[in-house]
Amino acid sequence: MEEKIKTLSTLYANHFSASLDTVRLRTGRTTERIRVDHPEAAAVVAFPDAKHILMVRQWRYAIGRETLEIPAGKADPGEGLEDCARRELQEETGFNAAQIVSLFRYFPAIGYSNEVIEIFAASSLEKGSEELDEDEISRVEIIELDRVHDLISQGIIQDGKTVIGISLFQARKERGEIPTDFFR
Amino acid sequence: MEEKIKTLSTLYANHFSASLDTVRLRTGRTTERIRVDHPEAAAVVAFPDAKHILMVRQWRYAIGRETLEIPAGKADPGEGLEDCARRELQEETGFNAAQIVSLFRYFPAIGYSNEVIEIFAASSLEKGSEELDEDEISRVEIIELDRVHDLISQGIIQDGKTVIGISLFQARKERGEIPTDFFR
Repeated sequence: MEEKIKTLSTLYANHFSASLDTVRLRTGRTTERIRVDHPEAAAVVAFPDAKHILMVRQWRYAIGRETLEIPAGKADPGEGLEDCARRELQEETGFNAAQIVSLFRYFPAIGYSNEVIEIFAASSLEKGSEELDEDEISRVEIIELDRVHDLISQGIIQDGKTVIGISLFQARKERGEIPTDFFR
Repeated sequence: MEEKIKTLSTLYANHFSASLDTVRLRTGRTTERIRVDHPEAAAVVAFPDAKHILMVRQWRYAIGRETLEIPAGKADPGEGLEDCARRELQEETGFNAAQIVSLFRYFPAIGYSNEVIEIFAASSLEKGSEELDEDEISRVEIIELDRVHDLISQGIIQDGKTVIGISLFQARKERGEIPTDFFR
């Protein structure tokens, strides 16, 4: 294992922090590591029908460009991840989901962040509020699933959680692990 | 888009940094964002034969536990990502690869990091050096690919790049995009 000797400094943003720690490695050697302390997050592959999903266009400050991703966001304090997925879907697309199933829970950046993302699949969508989160989302798109696979294959979609969500939904469907009434 | 107003503070580790920036959102509102400035990285799904891959056990400080992952690491300054994948494979497992193909290039943590990971698939492996990177790697394992799919399905493997590497190798193989002599 590796153990913290001390935290040298910490940056605090609204909902998470980044620290620089001095760490003792398993060989006894010491080094410095940046560690992002991040709340859990949820993402959702939301199906208006069996052949399409909802995606959002948004500006990503960290990479300085607009991206096409599945809806996602950080959990509020005390909020469960299924509730978080439903809330983010509603805030980012205006849709509520009558059906939702968990697909996978993973660490996106295991080298320096404790962030966990749980990805859900949602169906039986109903249009709710028209008030979207305009601070973050510039456009909602309904995209054919075959086209999403093409956009991944072409390297146009480059967002990790979107690729994992689409790939694992497919794999779970092929294994018969998606409820038979998911697309009713 | 979102634009930086100023950087409030920065943490510097050995090979990357984390900054806290004040940012103007597309709606004109301002907020603070943590932004990790990370070198590009490479990961490799390495096949000793068509049915097995090499994986490494290592302690991950950010999540405080040991994980099972495909070999991976940050590029050295000026190093191309294919060279980085070959070097990390060699340092972490002792194997050299005669064949290597790019599978995918993606952003693992698009909300706060500019890290790019390019994932490769490697075959025709030959045992090279016995000197492994003992600071980071505790054990190298050869695991049946079917079992890797099970470990993902069971939530035992929870590392994003490993899931994307395995899923996209499978998808590309089914699309006929892996060279026919890849497993010779």
